[in-house]
Amino acid sequence: MNGFIAVHCGAGYHSDTLRKDYQKTCYTACRKAGQALREGGNAVDAVEKAIVELENSSLTNAGYGSNLSWDGLVECDASIMNGQTLHFGACGAVSNVWNPIKLAKQLCIKQCDNLSLGRVPPCILTGKGARTWAERMGLEIVDDKKMISARSFRNYKHCKRKLKRYSLQNDVRFSPLDTVGAICVDSNGVVAAGASSGGVSLKHEGRVGQAASFGSGVWAVMSRDGKKPSVASCTSGCGEHLIRTQLARNTAESLFESSPVLSLDKCLKEKFLESPFLWDIPERLGGALALSFNPEIGEGELLWGHTTKTMCIGYMSTEIAKPKCIISYLPSKVEPGHKAVVSGLPFKVPLQPCPVLQWEIKTEHHSNGSL
Amino acid sequence: MNGFIAVHCGAGYHSDTLRKDYQKTCYTACRKAGQALREGGNAVDAVEKAIVELENSSLTNAGYGSNLSWDGLVECDASIMNGQTLHFGACGAVSNVWNPIKLAKQLCIKQCDNLSLGRVPPCILTGKGARTWAERMGLEIVDDKKMISARSFRNYKHCKRKLKRYSLQNDVRFSPLDTVGAICVDSNGVVAAGASSGGVSLKHEGRVGQAASFGSGVWAVMSRDGKKPSVASCTSGCGEHLIRTQLARNTAESLFESSPVLSLDKCLKEKFLESPFLWDIPERLGGALALSFNPEIGEGELLWGHTTKTMCIGYMSTEIAKPKCIISYLPSKVEPGHKAVVSGLPFKVPLQPCPVLQWEIKTEHHSNGSL
Repeated sequence: MNGFIAVHCGAGYHSDTLRKDYQKTCYTACRKAGQALREGGNAVDAVEKAIVELENSSLTNAGYGSNLSWDGLVECDASIMNGQTLHFGACGAVSNVWNPIKLAKQLCIKQCDNLSLGRVPPCILTGKGARTWAERMGLEIVDDKKMISARSFRNYKHCKRKLKRYSLQNDVRFSPLDTVGAICVDSNGVVAAGASSGGVSLKHEGRVGQAASFGSGVWAVMSRDGKKPSVASCTSGCGEHLIRTQLARNTAESLFESSPVLSLDKCLKEKFLESPFLWDIPERLGGALALSFNPEIGEGELLWGHTTKTMCIGYMSTEIAKPKCIISYLPSKVEPGHKAVVSGLPFKVPLQPCPVLQWEIKTEHHSNGSL
Repeated sequence: MNGFIAVHCGAGYHSDTLRKDYQKTCYTACRKAGQALREGGNAVDAVEKAIVELENSSLTNAGYGSNLSWDGLVECDASIMNGQTLHFGACGAVSNVWNPIKLAKQLCIKQCDNLSLGRVPPCILTGKGARTWAERMGLEIVDDKKMISARSFRNYKHCKRKLKRYSLQNDVRFSPLDTVGAICVDSNGVVAAGASSGGVSLKHEGRVGQAASFGSGVWAVMSRDGKKPSVASCTSGCGEHLIRTQLARNTAESLFESSPVLSLDKCLKEKFLESPFLWDIPERLGGALALSFNPEIGEGELLWGHTTKTMCIGYMSTEIAKPKCIISYLPSKVEPGHKAVVSGLPFKVPLQPCPVLQWEIKTEHHSNGSL
């Protein structure tokens, strides 16, 4: 299978000293996704594999090395949306699951299942229940401590100290890196999007952010009739604000309009920076990675935009061996949270001779007494 | 304060023998909401008080007496949206909190808080973390067993037996009653919506349904400029399907069009019964209670629609002492999950001489070292 994949390792602030490492992480994530496609995987598999790589990196705020909660635990959110089936799977505030994105993918796949007595497979699982479900699926479960990196532990100690010292001040802020994500279109024209996040530093136990909320962290819808393009999007930034503005859905749907770059720019302005849902928020920090794809001609556009200082992205077509990785900067004079920078580039995906049509999906239907 | 309140105790199937009891529950819930308004509470307080009453009833699938999970526990979802501040608070899969809606309201109120170091108050809390947060807020925490009613325990045993017997059959189904909800507009023109649910019978631990998902369980947006009406909505039915279709937001926003009854009917048809997001679902079971209010003339319309067999609703204007409670039926020849029945009626709310304008909100901003 061929395809086009794009990843990001969080909108936020990427320090100059670690810049090369962030780019390398995105590079490897793209390669893994490419490999998944070449081995016959679809867009969902590619997104999963890319995010597994991002989660396994101690640099990112996802999976291993995530921000620690107030109680010093790693609690992860992750979700995947399949643009062909329109199914969504998400896990929230889950501990001990080494790769939360694998759990989200399993939940998404299991949406096809028919449970007995008209019961419905869960699409969002949280906390301990999410962990036991993951265990039953055979996913890797690890100790609390194994999810914590030396770096994330140092950062936790630092934040706690800062908090003690500046508890009455609001001008000292953490400079967070948020949710990572990936989007893909494969040569069957299937689009998918995924996101994974450790959430904000010192968050309250059980808090669920946009990476586990429908419409906020990821969005993917495949073209039904060729009139509208296929779209996919994943977001990063302050989870609560991305939930309120449902940014993933809004950015993806903005691409139905004619000029993708202008549409994304308009969307970030009207539906995020000037959103009535954020009327009380002085700084609107977020970013989105999105794609629009015309399955009739096999051409698409990759787009990214952010109101944070930086966003590190990588992208790759399976026909070109090497991924490209860049760090996108907000102009130096612009204060983060007040304006967006938006860019894009075209890409091509040669379609299979016999593309699978969206509504001809063969799903496994089987009765299942257990949950 | 005056106002108009409407409640429902779940779309689903209300048996004839319990019909009077369901109506009585809705009646009392309306009365409690009315009392909250008369005592100076706003629309959010009224919604909370109505839902507390619905949760405390052993008849409803919310709070005490909720459906039990696979492991025999009560795990609740609840949310509230304030149409004035556009804030949303939700708890998911939370045990031991006697009134989950009170927790949702506290989370919604606390959205105004400024935490130190740029941290953001959580809008969705789940599981154990939600319980500890509720505890700190001084909400009533009870033992697991205290949340279980004799009726819900009998039902659990019955479902487990059924499951064993019919594990390979799919024609025997539970006949569930789902999420309860309330909507209100007060004489300041503030609109609010709330929902509370015990989720599906035998659900997996940690499962989160629409009552804790932004845009799916509740929606409330106050008119900003008088051009569009204020709207509020709450939904009931199969949680996963209401999440996929974001039915609360869709039904509320459909009321921006001219004829509310026709708009809701069109919305339930196009965005639920024929939704591409439910292409693989043979039965689309759901219902919505919604209101549209024109603050310039103090007139509005209450609407309800459902694709389930029945929906039990109650409504009341504080100026008329007695609430009215009805059970709405799908026509007897119509199979549930395939067609919707929609009704509505007009109401009036005399506005205060000096209505609070939406964007002139006084919120308490204070630094807070703790979460």
